Amino acid sequence: MLISALLTSVAINSGLCVLFFVLYSVLRKQPTNYEVYIPRLLAEGNSRRRSRFNLERLIPSPGWLMRAWKLTEGDILSSSGLDAVVFMRIITFCLKVFTFAGIIGIFVLLPVNCTGTQLHQIDFTNFTSNSLDVFSISNVNNGSKSLWIHFSAVYLLTIFICGLLYYEYMYISSQRIAYFSSSKPQPHQFTILVRSIPVSAGSSVSQSVESFFSEYYPTTYLSHIVVRRTSKLRNLLNEAHNLYKRIIHLRSEPSQNKFKRVQLFGNKVDLVDHYEKKLEDIEQNVRLEQSEASLIEDTRAAFVSFKSRYAAATVFHMRQSINPTHWITEQAPEPHDVYWPFFSSSFMRRWISKLIVIVACVLLTILFLIPVVLVQGLTNLNQLEIWLPFLKSVLSIAFVSQVVTGYLPSLILQCFLFVIPPIMEFLSSIQGYISHSAIEKSACNKVLWFTIWNIFFATVFSGSVLYQISIFLEPKNIPAKLAVAVPAQASFFIAYVVTSGWTSTSSELFRTIPLLCSLCTRCCRKSTDDEVPSIPYHRDIPRICFFGLLGITYFFLAPLILPFLLVYLCLAYIVFSNQWINVYAPKYETAGKFWPIVHNSMIFSLVLMHAIALGIFTVKKVPLASTLVFPLPILTLLFNEYCRKRFLPIFVAYSSEVLIKKDREDQNDATLAEFYENLANAYQDPALMPIQYSTSSENLSSPLLSSNVV
Amino acid sequence: MLISALLTSVAINSGLCVLFFVLYSVLRKQPTNYEVYIPRLLAEGNSRRRSRFNLERLIPSPGWLMRAWKLTEGDILSSSGLDAVVFMRIITFCLKVFTFAGIIGIFVLLPVNCTGTQLHQIDFTNFTSNSLDVFSISNVNNGSKSLWIHFSAVYLLTIFICGLLYYEYMYISSQRIAYFSSSKPQPHQFTILVRSIPVSAGSSVSQSVESFFSEYYPTTYLSHIVVRRTSKLRNLLNEAHNLYKRIIHLRSEPSQNKFKRVQLFGNKVDLVDHYEKKLEDIEQNVRLEQSEASLIEDTRAAFVSFKSRYAAATVFHMRQSINPTHWITEQAPEPHDVYWPFFSSSFMRRWISKLIVIVACVLLTILFLIPVVLVQGLTNLNQLEIWLPFLKSVLSIAFVSQVVTGYLPSLILQCFLFVIPPIMEFLSSIQGYISHSAIEKSACNKVLWFTIWNIFFATVFSGSVLYQISIFLEPKNIPAKLAVAVPAQASFFIAYVVTSGWTSTSSELFRTIPLLCSLCTRCCRKSTDDEVPSIPYHRDIPRICFFGLLGITYFFLAPLILPFLLVYLCLAYIVFSNQWINVYAPKYETAGKFWPIVHNSMIFSLVLMHAIALGIFTVKKVPLASTLVFPLPILTLLFNEYCRKRFLPIFVAYSSEVLIKKDREDQNDATLAEFYENLANAYQDPALMPIQYSTSSENLSSPLLSSNVV
Repeated sequence: MLISALLTSVAINSGLCVLFFVLYSVLRKQPTNYEVYIPRLLAEGNSRRRSRFNLERLIPSPGWLMRAWKLTEGDILSSSGLDAVVFMRIITFCLKVFTFAGIIGIFVLLPVNCTGTQLHQIDFTNFTSNSLDVFSISNVNNGSKSLWIHFSAVYLLTIFICGLLYYEYMYISSQRIAYFSSSKPQPHQFTILVRSIPVSAGSSVSQSVESFFSEYYPTTYLSHIVVRRTSKLRNLLNEAHNLYKRIIHLRSEPSQNKFKRVQLFGNKVDLVDHYEKKLEDIEQNVRLEQSEASLIEDTRAAFVSFKSRYAAATVFHMRQSINPTHWITEQAPEPHDVYWPFFSSSFMRRWISKLIVIVACVLLTILFLIPVVLVQGLTNLNQLEIWLPFLKSVLSIAFVSQVVTGYLPSLILQCFLFVIPPIMEFLSSIQGYISHSAIEKSACNKVLWFTIWNIFFATVFSGSVLYQISIFLEPKNIPAKLAVAVPAQASFFIAYVVTSGWTSTSSELFRTIPLLCSLCTRCCRKSTDDEVPSIPYHRDIPRICFFGLLGITYFFLAPLILPFLLVYLCLAYIVFSNQWINVYAPKYETAGKFWPIVHNSMIFSLVLMHAIALGIFTVKKVPLASTLVFPLPILTLLFNEYCRKRFLPIFVAYSSEVLIKKDREDQNDATLAEFYENLANAYQDPALMPIQYSTSSENLSSPLLSSNVV
Repeated sequence: MLISALLTSVAINSGLCVLFFVLYSVLRKQPTNYEVYIPRLLAEGNSRRRSRFNLERLIPSPGWLMRAWKLTEGDILSSSGLDAVVFMRIITFCLKVFTFAGIIGIFVLLPVNCTGTQLHQIDFTNFTSNSLDVFSISNVNNGSKSLWIHFSAVYLLTIFICGLLYYEYMYISSQRIAYFSSSKPQPHQFTILVRSIPVSAGSSVSQSVESFFSEYYPTTYLSHIVVRRTSKLRNLLNEAHNLYKRIIHLRSEPSQNKFKRVQLFGNKVDLVDHYEKKLEDIEQNVRLEQSEASLIEDTRAAFVSFKSRYAAATVFHMRQSINPTHWITEQAPEPHDVYWPFFSSSFMRRWISKLIVIVACVLLTILFLIPVVLVQGLTNLNQLEIWLPFLKSVLSIAFVSQVVTGYLPSLILQCFLFVIPPIMEFLSSIQGYISHSAIEKSACNKVLWFTIWNIFFATVFSGSVLYQISIFLEPKNIPAKLAVAVPAQASFFIAYVVTSGWTSTSSELFRTIPLLCSLCTRCCRKSTDDEVPSIPYHRDIPRICFFGLLGITYFFLAPLILPFLLVYLCLAYIVFSNQWINVYAPKYETAGKFWPIVHNSMIFSLVLMHAIALGIFTVKKVPLASTLVFPLPILTLLFNEYCRKRFLPIFVAYSSEVLIKKDREDQNDATLAEFYENLANAYQDPALMPIQYSTSSENLSSPLLSSNVV
């Protein structure tokens, strides 16, 4: 790729970004878009709908930029919880890393690369016609002493990142403990989920739980709720809910619409009456189902609550039964975080579904190579012209070819990548996780590795699946192959950062999809649920981590990528700060459990960088340097191992020291008795709550149905 | 190798075995050998030394064979504990497997192999001149349909072994729980070891432990003992002990020996007086050191005892401190099982020593290839003749060449292998384990994998280390390479079973080394310690497992190995039964913790067999069979995964159900108060016990020094 193609891509994307920012500045002030741009403020009642028109509404104003920039960590913590803080710290972590890397890269490595003559000499007369390769390590002469500068840069960056990772892990651990210590008594701290409950003949699950825990934990056991299978009921409730919304909508309409033919040859019927009758029928069905469901106990799972956090933690940590596949305990999620639909019963079935998900992930990865190969075809214009000769005339236009090579490939990839997070979330959800947070964490991991494999490795080793696998089946050749293939794709990934990174951030700000949805629903005059959205961690964390991986691996190969990454990170910082204020509200609190994923991905990036460095220095004929790089991945992995021992346990469970202290603090709390009472019903399945859609209009506005139905 | 060479080897070894058995039958009846052959009976006082001579003592009698054969599991359990039962069950497990495999192998596979003509047709006129390859799968014609018989045999044996493994794991788990349930209160059930105790300035380790546990576990905490570094003290004590033994020895001698010149120009001195003075000096030193040692608390480790088993288990299972590298808890070993010398203090130091041990193991493995390559030279006679031409004339003698190819190689390997278990035990001991049992378990694993790597793989892929590593760096070629290399070594391994297996068992019976030691000490007139030896699990379990691996992998390649294995196993059964009665006493009780090692090695053997089958069927041009073998390793690994979930946790720790039940049983036990009192001192370092080698002869026979000093 030539500099001119890169500049085209940068120009298009900068233009788009500015356009999105300006449009956003205007659109967010329109009251009709409040649901899209400030749902959180609306829900919190912090913003009134100003219906009065004034000119100011049409002029873009940068005030929100300042507010977003000035947002402190304390603000985010108090308003959105620790997960949001961790999310923002991922961005600031990358900012710190790439500021350091950028200074070295741009002011030291880039000049060294340019002065090399291995590929071309840089052409200052027609600067934009230079290939981007001039700025990469490929241009440094083989055996040149200046490669030791790259060597030192690799060491320096590794030390810097490891130091920062250590500090960050420590900081987030301490924040996690501080968060727990300052929290009020919460149901999930006192509760565990028990699965695979053995039931003796003539006894029920409930009796079994009661007898087991009151026998072995008589002093600490409080209560339990058996989990029931309610998928059928849940469908009925959704139906009722939709009908109910339609009735409300009809009531608020002008009266001429209320009458419609409901039968082909029937009379005109009052639709409201008709729907209300239908609703009553469904309600009847729901009550019937509820009473039936409460009799069937085929999930063999129960939430068991204890009188103290320590007691619950003890039961969680200890194996309960002689048979390790019975009485399996898990930490309970927050009540509103429970993922009710999937409560697979037996130990074996969950195990099998896990295997199925692994197979599905592998299949998805293989299928996804098709678009990747397509995209690769676009970056190699010559090959495309051979495949599709009729395009030759169009592609000969300079601008078109620049768009095609510089912009289109990453855009297509971007579109395909768009569907991956929801698919992975679905796969995680059938894997047997019990909470939304666990599902998202697992999906986050899946998306991250999928991205690394399918974007990084598939692009680098573009070719068939079998070829890729064959590379990994010969581990000793990996560094050499990486050394050849990775620098060759530098220009693609620079374009990728610009296209995918910049555009995704601006479209995150602009909220394209919700905006379109909102426009549609307004046209169709449907009432919408005024729910505040939550941030899809499994979409955004892997994206940032992947850019981190690109930055770290290309840092010493093609430092030109770093300024673009820094722009991306600054944009991301501002946009997400703004979204935390205005849009997203936390759906659950994992207290920082996403950080270990980020830590692992950074360590992986470092080791990958070392493998590439090892190969590059061999290819560039500086064998001493490649030998001296060898201890670096080993030391990095040892560092990671230390961190796993030092910090990871804190993210798995709280220590007894912390739990006992917290329990003692509560002993003097007068509200604890009340809390215990509520605890008994905290984990009631919302589908089993009594429902009452009263048919009188005054009651319609306050249905008893919980909004937690999934 | 020709059949005649094998027959030579079998003849030599059978002769040796018979000789050993006959010699043993005679020697065990000589009172002077009682310490060697029936130390256990002596220690238990079940055998009186019959000093009267009679002729019966010189005639070999087979009575001991019957006693050993008739020994039941119940007898072993009551006399030697669960570990001995598990050890014997390893042998019976292999016996069951290879009886089943042997029937299939000899009556089905062997005839099929012989009827093939791929290599040679079998020569019935001069049977012994046939190559052993005639009996192996190599002789089956390529693409022959009879290979499906081998295919079915692989499936059948896998199913049989998996079923047996499942049953065995279940049986030993239940035995383990039954053993615990029927056990009396024991100190290690109530105690945990705490390491990395943080100490605040101006406070001692003891105070720190006291304040921590009495703050967080006020109702269950009982007492603690801080571990102290006593290596210097231990040396002094050993010196004192030796001196003391010498004095006793001198006292029992005729008086003329008591006087000796102690100085070149000095007077004759009463040696006893001289030594007694020296002993007093050392005693003084010991007391001084003891009082000093009890002040220094630099190990930062302590044994903490609780009032119930459940309380101790809770503390063990839960992470105690906010910082996961502080207050690290471990299950305490039995008091006499504690390995006092090594109490590495800090978290980091133990971690580093672990890394050093890994590096040492790798180095040892590489160095060990030298003898293996030498041995390989012997099996390839032609190559040896090229290397050492002067041997040509000697080697041309038929008998010599048969001994050299059939017997010498395995014997040399055997001698080198002899030093491996002690080395591995040493390496494990510096790895930071706190008990003899844990050290042996770890050494057992190390020896097993060392044997598999250095005997199996090094022999199969004889060549340089780099060649071997390069094979494992290209995983997709492993089956093909195994398929070529493994059958080629069939005759070597048959000879190995005969030499190494048969001879090692008979020499185990004969106790060659202890016998020689006993002879030496008797000549030198030194008094010996009358300690009952304990079985070196880390030497014998890997050996049996390795023969299991050989049997399973060669079962369908060269079924001729199976009868020899069965003979070995029968010998082992009888010999070890006999040794349990007469020789070995258990030093500790892990309640079956060695079984998972055996289980894993069997699973590994199965998967290795599948990999070889995969390669063989490809090489033999039956691609369908090689495709159909593919699910087998996957299913086997899934089966193993299930077993890991179903049984392994039982071997790690007892469940709360079991613990609480056991604690409740004890509540009515009147002796518990006394037990608690003893508990406080159960983990006192024997080196810190008060010593008193009184100089008066009547006290000399009952020193207060504990015999636990290592």
